[in-house]
Amino acid sequence: MKLLRVGTAGAERPALLDGDGDLATLRDLSGLVPDIDGALLQDAAALDRIRAAAAAGELPELDPAGLRVGPPLARVGKVVCIGLNYHDHAAETGAEPPGEPVVFLKASDTVVGPDDTVLVPRGSRKTDWEVELAVVIGRTARYVADDEDPLSYVAGYAVSHDVSEREFQIERGGTWDKGKNCETFNPLGPWLVTADEVPDPQALGLRLWVNGELRQDGRTADQIFPVAEVVRYVSHFMTLHPGDVINTGTPAGVAMGHPEPKPYLRAGDVVELEIDGLGRQRQELKDA
Amino acid sequence: MKLLRVGTAGAERPALLDGDGDLATLRDLSGLVPDIDGALLQDAAALDRIRAAAAAGELPELDPAGLRVGPPLARVGKVVCIGLNYHDHAAETGAEPPGEPVVFLKASDTVVGPDDTVLVPRGSRKTDWEVELAVVIGRTARYVADDEDPLSYVAGYAVSHDVSEREFQIERGGTWDKGKNCETFNPLGPWLVTADEVPDPQALGLRLWVNGELRQDGRTADQIFPVAEVVRYVSHFMTLHPGDVINTGTPAGVAMGHPEPKPYLRAGDVVELEIDGLGRQRQELKDA
Repeated sequence: MKLLRVGTAGAERPALLDGDGDLATLRDLSGLVPDIDGALLQDAAALDRIRAAAAAGELPELDPAGLRVGPPLARVGKVVCIGLNYHDHAAETGAEPPGEPVVFLKASDTVVGPDDTVLVPRGSRKTDWEVELAVVIGRTARYVADDEDPLSYVAGYAVSHDVSEREFQIERGGTWDKGKNCETFNPLGPWLVTADEVPDPQALGLRLWVNGELRQDGRTADQIFPVAEVVRYVSHFMTLHPGDVINTGTPAGVAMGHPEPKPYLRAGDVVELEIDGLGRQRQELKDA
Repeated sequence: MKLLRVGTAGAERPALLDGDGDLATLRDLSGLVPDIDGALLQDAAALDRIRAAAAAGELPELDPAGLRVGPPLARVGKVVCIGLNYHDHAAETGAEPPGEPVVFLKASDTVVGPDDTVLVPRGSRKTDWEVELAVVIGRTARYVADDEDPLSYVAGYAVSHDVSEREFQIERGGTWDKGKNCETFNPLGPWLVTADEVPDPQALGLRLWVNGELRQDGRTADQIFPVAEVVRYVSHFMTLHPGDVINTGTPAGVAMGHPEPKPYLRAGDVVELEIDGLGRQRQELKDA
């Protein structure tokens, strides 16, 4: 299923995208479930009710015209991020491929809708893009054992934009978090695609354009630590709860990896990004 | 006011500690406000109703016997932490005093009650303690200007225990977050003391004992970046919302700063910590 949330920010209603491409229909889920959040994702019966109602043609249609798409997940828990997780991206930053996953956090209040405005922070000179595969946790993962399937803890997948301010991240002392948590810095969506429809998370293409120019064109097959290993690994350092999100890293092609003058983002720029089967985002940059 | 939340984990009710020391009485606030959270802290009228009801003696008494004390804040937003913010602690770690605040994040799901069990993570050899003054945000702080009073964004203060696993934090690659987000790693409370009762956050003594032995004995006067500067600074990198918490750093005396063999925490150890006027915590360590 493609689950999403539509409406004004803070007042989104849960919805389902029924079908594919131009023939897809937007269906209202608000009569069936209160919202799309961690509580829903761990409720197999509720998810089955949605599936059954969709199959029976019982869900009312929603007119998508003029409807804003919000983040596909309400009450996002924590956002765990994996750094330098693509061979080509590690190379472009000049870093050695890490021996174990690099982990940092984004605050969940950075999460916005897939087409919402992204704000260039005041004083920023190095606002950068990163298309990422987001993993949404569906049940509590704590010290996942070697004989377990880590993907069984995954409720679904989404497109995530891990916007980053490189000067704040790298040149201002301390950890990366300072350049990762500016407001609007994590567009998410449009859809949460349930895991049953993503049989192999390592077989996805990711692409990102700035002002129409293709800047990132990667494949999750190039991840140093695949999704399953990331979930297992992280669960040994922190407990993952339903509604938590893991941004699993970005492929090569970010502004920081370019020769000077690096093409960092400025107000007026338009970023578009997509992942196979997970939909497409489009953000216009504005000054904070 | 000393606001707190009592009851079993996940089902706490809001309460007020009325009076001081042995003469203090626990009062039930659940008839007056739904909970103590960011929404309450930005609602001056609701806080005034609590004050008026307490002054009029209208609040029912609660029997504290056997009542667990939870974290004094529900729905904690993000937990922003300031690293190396005391002159003596920076020195003991061998780090240069930072030129600007070092910022990292803890996930809000690490927050537990002040006397709850703290779990030593599996595989941990370097679980360490850090007593900290926590600042609780009461209204949205975004690019706080030089001519504003940053403390006007502070709803109150609390004792915070920024438990840290030093091997995970420093020796396992990536940022500090890996050693800061293990489950139960942020006891908070017992009280949220409203800012009007803490006229000078730079005039507080902080102390921490392990198994009865005094290990940290610092003063907030020794902070490199005082609370007001921390709030102003952080607001230029991320928007602070009501219910967000800032852990403002720890003074000297952590296990990591000791000569070998360093006295890291193990199951069975008891940590007690307190800050002048903000109450006292007591945690027993157990294995995860």
